[in-house]
This record gives sequence, structure tokens and C-alpha cells, in this order.
Amino acid sequence: MTESTERNVSLALDILHQRFGDRFLTGHSIREQHGHTTTYLKNQPPDAVVMAQSAEDVTWVVQVCAEHRCPVIAFGAGSSLEGQLNAPAGGVSIDMSAMDKILKVDQNDLTVTVQPGVKRVALNEHLRDTGLFFPIDPGADASMGGMASTRASGTNAVRYGTMKDNVLSLKAVMADGREITTASRAKKTSAGYDMTRLLVGAEGTLGVITELTLKLHGLPESIVGGVCNFPDIESVCQATIQTIQYGLPIARIEMLDEVQVRACNAYSKLSLAEKPTLFVEFHGSEASTQEQSETFNEIIQEFGGSDFEWTSNTEERTKLWQARHDAYWAARALRPGCDAVVTDACVPISRLADCVEETLKDIQEHNLLAPIVGHVGDGNFHTAVLIDMDNPDAVNTAKQFAERLSLRAIAMGGTCTGEHGIGQGKKSYLRQELGDTVDFMSMIKSSLDPLNIMNPEKIF
Amino acid sequence: MTESTERNVSLALDILHQRFGDRFLTGHSIREQHGHTTTYLKNQPPDAVVMAQSAEDVTWVVQVCAEHRCPVIAFGAGSSLEGQLNAPAGGVSIDMSAMDKILKVDQNDLTVTVQPGVKRVALNEHLRDTGLFFPIDPGADASMGGMASTRASGTNAVRYGTMKDNVLSLKAVMADGREITTASRAKKTSAGYDMTRLLVGAEGTLGVITELTLKLHGLPESIVGGVCNFPDIESVCQATIQTIQYGLPIARIEMLDEVQVRACNAYSKLSLAEKPTLFVEFHGSEASTQEQSETFNEIIQEFGGSDFEWTSNTEERTKLWQARHDAYWAARALRPGCDAVVTDACVPISRLADCVEETLKDIQEHNLLAPIVGHVGDGNFHTAVLIDMDNPDAVNTAKQFAERLSLRAIAMGGTCTGEHGIGQGKKSYLRQELGDTVDFMSMIKSSLDPLNIMNPEKIF
Repeated sequence: MTESTERNVSLALDILHQRFGDRFLTGHSIREQHGHTTTYLKNQPPDAVVMAQSAEDVTWVVQVCAEHRCPVIAFGAGSSLEGQLNAPAGGVSIDMSAMDKILKVDQNDLTVTVQPGVKRVALNEHLRDTGLFFPIDPGADASMGGMASTRASGTNAVRYGTMKDNVLSLKAVMADGREITTASRAKKTSAGYDMTRLLVGAEGTLGVITELTLKLHGLPESIVGGVCNFPDIESVCQATIQTIQYGLPIARIEMLDEVQVRACNAYSKLSLAEKPTLFVEFHGSEASTQEQSETFNEIIQEFGGSDFEWTSNTEERTKLWQARHDAYWAARALRPGCDAVVTDACVPISRLADCVEETLKDIQEHNLLAPIVGHVGDGNFHTAVLIDMDNPDAVNTAKQFAERLSLRAIAMGGTCTGEHGIGQGKKSYLRQELGDTVDFMSMIKSSLDPLNIMNPEKIF
Repeated sequence: MTESTERNVSLALDILHQRFGDRFLTGHSIREQHGHTTTYLKNQPPDAVVMAQSAEDVTWVVQVCAEHRCPVIAFGAGSSLEGQLNAPAGGVSIDMSAMDKILKVDQNDLTVTVQPGVKRVALNEHLRDTGLFFPIDPGADASMGGMASTRASGTNAVRYGTMKDNVLSLKAVMADGREITTASRAKKTSAGYDMTRLLVGAEGTLGVITELTLKLHGLPESIVGGVCNFPDIESVCQATIQTIQYGLPIARIEMLDEVQVRACNAYSKLSLAEKPTLFVEFHGSEASTQEQSETFNEIIQEFGGSDFEWTSNTEERTKLWQARHDAYWAARALRPGCDAVVTDACVPISRLADCVEETLKDIQEHNLLAPIVGHVGDGNFHTAVLIDMDNPDAVNTAKQFAERLSLRAIAMGGTCTGEHGIGQGKKSYLRQELGDTVDFMSMIKSSLDPLNIMNPEKIF
């Protein structure tokens, strides 16, 4: 193949159309659905969507796109929050949702090998009878490929880590069309550069993930969950800080501010006191969860925590955590017809109270409706500013608020994003956070994708 | 500065000599000591050694070396095992041992910030009164910079992870002389490529680490250790596999084969039965360690484990683990005057018994003296083939054995190195393990170090 020197998207599209037939789609609504759909960022649809069924399909698409310098954007479940799926330079969206096979559960090695379109709920349903589970649980029912690409985490990360810690090895089609395997299946390795961790969090800018081998964890013998509330936001943060500093191996510790509790009560039919609240969960043996919950109870007493209700009843726990996962929808329901400008920041745990309190003050000063909810054990929290997206002033106000939050987290030694990624929305903050380091990231991008076809205009 | 197109090492040396005066050393023995000194690999000394005292010194050296294309090799404690410190293309060794300050212990965030020359024993002594510790413990008293660079681990990795998991953020001087910070101090981040994990394990080929922020862990309330032996090597491996698959949060599980037990008895004045043996340790609350040790006891009964001796006595535990850390020296003392060809492989835990048994058969068939010792909870083990280094046939036999072990591990879905790195010794196996993936590693190397001055001829 000779190489063209300019993007020739339409030629690439013709070739792909011929190859994929009715798996090559250009309808307006399907293209829109494959651009960004979740937040305030403008939808920028790709020129076409290819429904992939195999790694060979992906290789084929990337090779054609490399030949004609056509952008390639992998699509999983469409739940990313920073514009990762938009196509500002046009090009092809490769929809991985049909690549949803669970290829091998290896109970002896506590691993599972999956195609990238497998979603987290389906994976754990499949694992149910094995006594194992996969702990990473972003709010949405995201795909494994997408979760790896944004370095996702969720409520269990405080104990089980993020995608960075739970991907053992990947297969990916790189920009030249070659499929590579990033690592062996050994639990530890010192064999060369950590290509697994480089692709995890690369947001599709270096390659398209075509297979993942993930670490699994044993379902705990005992799971105990509970809810408690606090007189104010500082107390809830301080109780969290103390829990982490104590070294309690808590499995989940989620904060909801008063507004978010009100939203969840209404949306998920709960009847929690409308106060700053923690949802917590302990995993271990019966004796260990008992011990952990007693220690936690002692800690929260110091900070005025009250109404502590425990349960090991599965149904009650499920209802609680479903409410937590629906927090985003509950927030939106607070102002019907509104949209949400969602943002995410993460600070060292010692600065959690400072960062949340200043953010709350900011919300009040600017008269915003913006519930706060967070994976506070990791120093990570989210806000959803509820606005009318047709009102440019409101959008602007919300964006300025998100910017102040990013810069506040950075100034406290934290990051502008704990788990959503940079995408289009946070490019300028990345530079503020890491300075010249971004130049070296950019050199890696240029060397592995010299034609800039892999999800261009993201991160950088 | 204008850029020369060829290496001009001697000009670089003159400039560095002028700048660093008596911190610029060229004596034969000091140069030899800064090359590879630990295994069969030939010593290839650098042309000079600079004793760095600050990141500014490192920046200065790298800038001069970049100008004149002079190789730069960072030196920590000299304990690497695959030739990482050799200077096959000459150049300057930057000795980081005087950069040994512990800059900040942050008890609130469970982190410590250190210079790269800080060694692991000194770090934990410094931390003693804080109730915190740093878990990574390779056999040698290695430096933090070196441990990060080889992605080191050790006996605690089965519970606490490796350097990959315990480095929060790094500062490094890159090949163009700029010092970067790889990440914020937040526990989680999705902000761009994972430059921390890229530098961890890069063996100094991308930059010189000048500062590390490390994760600390709370000293467990209760530590219980023990020793047990088994009728044969298969039983010890199967008991280990069962322990891991059960999900027991064991802190250490180390295997010693009969020969290694004999060596340790002699060297460390122990009186263990000369049988395949496990050294184990449990961390947790009193109730939890009790529970763990009981469960473990039940597991080993199934595999004929016996003579199980427990202790929570600190002195006895320390003696045991000191013996484990001295295993290398104990092995060498088995054949006085000999040297050791050390190698390290790691396989998925389900293949541990197969890999160890085949390796033992190989040792017997080739009539080698080669104790086996391993971090078996991770599927990782080492052999030290004891030979007379002046006998080329013996060296060849040992190297062929090491090669067979690497290929055996790779064939079982594992890696040719779990924790020692590639260096000079395992370059050919890296390609066998990861195929084309090595091309992409190599592209990263070329893009971040276009003049190939950072520890050249290593990994690739």
C-alpha cells in the first residue's frame, strides 16, 4: 500500500463500506449516538460507524484508516464523561459492543479473559456461581474496554484499586494495524516497559483494546453494609480521613451531601435523614467484618456520626448501592428537564475536608444546584451542576465552576480527574497539573501514532 | 549549545571533571565497582563516576551528556542482577548514594517522599516510630531509585504489591535534561498517560529518577510467622496454590527447596528439617491473624505439611526472615569460592508446581548445584546455579539452564523475569515473551531518548 500524505476520510469510508456492508452505518442518529452524549460537551458525530465482530475487523479498519489517515475512535458503552467519543476531525467509530464474549474464566489463576465490549454487570452475573467477582464499578454499566481506556474506578477502588490495578494484560491493535499483547499472564513482571499501564488510561489515543485479561477477587464470606449521617460536611470528611489513616480495610466509603441525599430519597424511594451521609461496606470473614464495623462505629462517634444502621441482608444492601449508582440520575431528577455538568476531582486524603468544604462554599456563593457525591476514601468526589443547557450563561457559569474545582484540586496536590479522564473537557487542566510532563506524553503519542489517527484531539 | 552528531565521551568527561572536581572519579576500582558486580555477566565499567548531591547535579550531568552524546547510567546500591549498571558503550555513572534524604513523611496521607539513594532498611528504620512501613523488600538492601527502576518486589509483594503499586509519583530528569513530575499526590488519577508506571521498570533507559513519593502501610497490630515442611516439592507448591486460590490475605509465603534449607541451616544457624519448606507470615488484627493461621493450617494438612511452628515473638521472626534475605549468600556458601548464576521466573499460580518440578528435574538431569527459593504466592521463584566462574564450560551450562528456565516460564504463560528486569542478560527472552510489543517499547525509547544516551544497550 502506498501512503497518502493527507487525510482522505471519504476514500477510507468507501473501502470500509464495501468490506462491511450492513455493518457499516452512516445514519444521522446512529452517528450522533456514537459521539459524546452524556454531558454539556457538544456532540461531534463520526462520519460512520463500523460494528466490529472480531479483532480481525478492528485490524482491518485500522489498516485502512492508517492508509488514508482517517481517524479511528473505539466505542464501548457510550458512558464516558469528558468527550472521549467525539469525532472533532471526523472519521470512523468502531463499535465494540458486539465483541462481548467472556472468553475464559480461570478460577485457578483468579483471572478472566474478555472481549472489550463485555459490560460490568454482565461480567459479574456471569461470574456469580464461581465465588469470584470483578470489583471495578463506575456508575454506568460501562464496557471493559472503555473502563480500561479511561482508567475507571468506582466505589470499590478504596479496597480493590482501579482498572490500573486490575488489568493483568491487554491485546490492542496499534496505529500501524498490528495487534500486540502487552504482558504475560504472570501476576508480577519486570519484563520491559509497562505497556499494560500505558494503554490503561490512554483513552484510545494509542491503540484499540481488543481483549483484556482481568484480575478477579474472591467474593467475601461476609459483607456488611451500613449508612450513617453527620451534622456537617466537615465531620463526614474527617471521619473518612480518620478511617483511612487508621488503616481499616474498608471496601466502600461513599459520601453524599444533603442535596444528594434529598435527590436519592426522591429518586430511589429511600427515607434517609437529609444530612451529609456515608454509605459504607465491609468485606471479610464474619469475625473480620464484625471487628471492622465496630472499629468504624467508634471512629464515627468522635465526629458526631449517628443513626448508624447495619445490615448484612443482601436485598437491603443492593437497594442502597443501586441508589448510589443511580445518584447521577437522581441528581438530574431534582430539576426536571435540566442537564448536568459533571466533574470529578481527587486530592490527597488529608486535603479532602478542605477541598469539599471550599467546593460547597463555591456552590453556595454562586447559587448553584450541584449535589456532591464521592468515593471519599480515595479523596475523590464528583459534582453535578444542574442547568438548562439552552441557557448559555448557565452553561458558562457551570463550566467556570468546574474549572475552579479542577484548579482547587491541583493546588491541593491533587488531580483534575480521579476517574473520568481528560478527553476534550480537561486538556488545559492537564497542562496546569503536570506541566512539561505533558510534552513527554505527547512524544509517546507521536511515536506510536505518527499519523495521528487514534482518537485525535483527545488528552492533548 | 550546538549539537554534535557523534558521541564525544571524552569532551563530556572533561567538562564534568571541571564542574565536579573531587566528586568526579575515574579510578579503576571505583569504576569497576560501578559496573555490574553481582552475577556471571562481565563487568563493563563506566569511564567515570559522578557523585551526585542534588537533582541539579543530575540535570547538569544529563545536559552535558546530551550535548556530547555521552551515555548516562544511574547507580543506586549496585545490587541489580541482570547487568543494568554495565557501561557497554562507556559513559558516566551517576552515583545517587549521597542523595539519601528522607524529605517528608506524611502520616496523614500515608506517604513518604525520598531521594533515590535512600535504602530500604534505612527507610524502615526511619519510619519505625510512625507506626508505618514500606513493604517492598528485595533480598539486597537496595536503593529506592534502583528498586523503582527494576520494578522490584520481594517477600511482601503477595499482599502489598510491587514497586509498580507502591510508587505514587516520581521526579525524573529526562534525556533532554528537563526534570518532570510524573503525577500529583492524589491516590487515584485519570490525568493522561501513566508516566509513573512507565518509568517504574524502565531500568534508567528513559530518565534518571531524582525523587520518589511512596505509599506507606500501617504496621499490622499483630504479626504471626511460621515455618512448615512438606514431603516433596509438589506438595509445597500445591499448598501454596490452594492458599492463594482460597483468597487468604497472606503477607508472605516463601518456598525453600531442600538444598536451600540445608544452605540456610548452615549459614544462618537454623535447625530446620531438610525438606521443602514454607516460611509464612500473617498480618492483621489479633483475631484476624489467628483466623488466618488456623485456615492455613487446615490447608497444609491436605498436602502433608507438618512440624508447623508458629511465633509472634519478634526476635524469632526476625531471625527467620533474616535467614530468608540471606538465602543468596547462604547458597553461595554451599560451595566456597564459587559464584552464582542467578535467575528469576514467574508463572501464573496454576502452573507453579509444573514449572518448579520441571526445573528441579532439569537441575538433577544436568547435575547442577542450584538451590530454589521463591516468592511462590506470586508464582515467582529464583534459582542460583553455583559454579566456578573461571570454568567456561560451567558458565555455559549455567547460562543454558537459565535460558531453559526463561523459555519454560514463557511457554507456561509466564515471564522470563518477575522482579530482576531485562538488563543485558534477558534481552533475547523479552522478544520471545512479548514479540512485536518490543517494537513499541523501542519506539517509546527512541522518542524520549532520541540520542540513546540513557543507559544504552539495556532492555533492547
